[in-house]
Amino acid sequence: MATNKRGRQSFLLPGPAVITHWASVAGKKEGEGPLAQYYDRVYQDTYFGEKTWEQGEKKLQQLSLMTLLEKAKLSTEQVDLVFSGDLLNQCIGSSFSLRGLGVPHLGLYGACSTMAESLLLSAMAVGGGFADRVVAMTSSHFASSERQYRFPLGYGGQRTPTSQWTVTGSGAALVCREGKGPVIECCTIGTVCDLGIQDANNMGAAMAPAAFQTIQAHMKDMRRRPEDFDLIVTGDLAQVGKEMLLELARQEGLSLGGKLSDCGSLVFDNTTQDVHAGGSGCGCSAVTLCGYLLDQLAAGKMNRILFCGTGALLSPTSTQQGLPIPGVCHAVSIASGRNG
Amino acid sequence: MATNKRGRQSFLLPGPAVITHWASVAGKKEGEGPLAQYYDRVYQDTYFGEKTWEQGEKKLQQLSLMTLLEKAKLSTEQVDLVFSGDLLNQCIGSSFSLRGLGVPHLGLYGACSTMAESLLLSAMAVGGGFADRVVAMTSSHFASSERQYRFPLGYGGQRTPTSQWTVTGSGAALVCREGKGPVIECCTIGTVCDLGIQDANNMGAAMAPAAFQTIQAHMKDMRRRPEDFDLIVTGDLAQVGKEMLLELARQEGLSLGGKLSDCGSLVFDNTTQDVHAGGSGCGCSAVTLCGYLLDQLAAGKMNRILFCGTGALLSPTSTQQGLPIPGVCHAVSIASGRNG
Repeated sequence: MATNKRGRQSFLLPGPAVITHWASVAGKKEGEGPLAQYYDRVYQDTYFGEKTWEQGEKKLQQLSLMTLLEKAKLSTEQVDLVFSGDLLNQCIGSSFSLRGLGVPHLGLYGACSTMAESLLLSAMAVGGGFADRVVAMTSSHFASSERQYRFPLGYGGQRTPTSQWTVTGSGAALVCREGKGPVIECCTIGTVCDLGIQDANNMGAAMAPAAFQTIQAHMKDMRRRPEDFDLIVTGDLAQVGKEMLLELARQEGLSLGGKLSDCGSLVFDNTTQDVHAGGSGCGCSAVTLCGYLLDQLAAGKMNRILFCGTGALLSPTSTQQGLPIPGVCHAVSIASGRNG
Repeated sequence: MATNKRGRQSFLLPGPAVITHWASVAGKKEGEGPLAQYYDRVYQDTYFGEKTWEQGEKKLQQLSLMTLLEKAKLSTEQVDLVFSGDLLNQCIGSSFSLRGLGVPHLGLYGACSTMAESLLLSAMAVGGGFADRVVAMTSSHFASSERQYRFPLGYGGQRTPTSQWTVTGSGAALVCREGKGPVIECCTIGTVCDLGIQDANNMGAAMAPAAFQTIQAHMKDMRRRPEDFDLIVTGDLAQVGKEMLLELARQEGLSLGGKLSDCGSLVFDNTTQDVHAGGSGCGCSAVTLCGYLLDQLAAGKMNRILFCGTGALLSPTSTQQGLPIPGVCHAVSIASGRNG
């Protein structure tokens, strides 16, 4: 078998990996945001009909998976594999959502990079001929995240200006060997980076070095330039992290200016929705990709994007122990699939 | 590209995926157990020179990675990718161990199935030509697990007879496109199963249905029988789970009797080491594989094993909320690589 490696971090797909369908399910606040029209479903109930927020998050993933399968006219038996993960301790949002469905499952932990990580591994599984139909999926929930990572919601803690608002939402994408839709061309796997940021309320800054390293590696490995993309879209650096990424890129002579966007900045209206620096959480890049971005590619309004999922690999324990916040970023290059 | 799928859950490798080197690092109690001679390093200090158990677990992974690279005479720059995960919230054992090493990393969460999951994905990455040298790695630590999942150690809580003892240890395996060593032939991806077990002190029972489902799927997909293996070795069902698996298999007409073994039963001496039902934790199957089992295959004392990593996908939150414990099991078929 020929190598599909390009450089150290990147690889091409030897066979087709087509995103034939995608689905997004969002919460109330997200449904009031600028991307509302692109979500398949918006729920007003933060519990999604369950008794706890954690079980609500499980339900969110079930809803996005079922919506995806409805759109694709497939039964669960026709799915070969689900790659999924989430932010809850031991990823219970993902594992409980698949209980009893009988679908093969590989669990991931990539924090907010999970949508990109699951998409990258789905591409590897499908492009390498190991599976025919694979789902990449993740979720996050504002309330389950707040109480796990920060304070009980009832405490009413003040948020700092650099803090981000965890998106309540789930996105799922179906990657297939056959069919029509946006195509995964190549991927770049990230390294664990940190510049010593210790402020758990400034995760954008903690993830920016990883985003820069991965974008730079992608350009080098694939011999590409930012001009080759309609959009380079990071996961959830939000306002503070995005500015830091632009500054890092400027220092290293890589001009991203006109091409860079960020799911954390797209998902909410920062001027009216009181989210401080912007959105975050695995669901942030998931609902933005599995709604707005893939819709744009499918409609030919964009021809190629670099989807860069960014994750802050901290835990409350590591923060309490005074450790800095490592970040990671995985990039997936997606073309509209309309040119041949 | 031809399909490498076999049945719904299994796949063959289209190119070589050779386990050229492996390393295991264990704690004091494990070093007093029956597999002591197979570990590369045994440490008496439960902190591994760090200030906290969580950072000690990070150090454990670093030690097993560095031992692996020493044995393989490779630098970190020569590793294309590390698949790893652990039991700590947000998998900080894995992400902090790779901070600043510059190694591409994809994070996993599969609970105690992580050694099998990381090996399966390493095989996919290498066998599919996406990477040349990939490390599959995981760890667990008795003290960091006890305080996260159960009680503070100082509390001295009584353990139930079905409870298992989390192994302090880390294992790492290097999967390569070229070289000599045991060969990964094919893999079976597990589904999320549960029979409604709610006792968090009886994880063996919670994982047994998943182990049975995956072993049965492997035999069907690959047209194999238990007689085709020298050993079918589950991750960490320990005594209670292993008996339950044998009973499930018997009910369904699959005779595993003489071939079944379990890492949770191999790793400790149940009669003298006071571990109740046996060992558990991601490190349990990791140190058993990356020591005893791969040594046996390399020496030709075994020709083929089915390594079945089992994971209990619970969290303290799901248990407190009264939910049952889903389980998962991934199987990797490894041959000695000495016959041709």
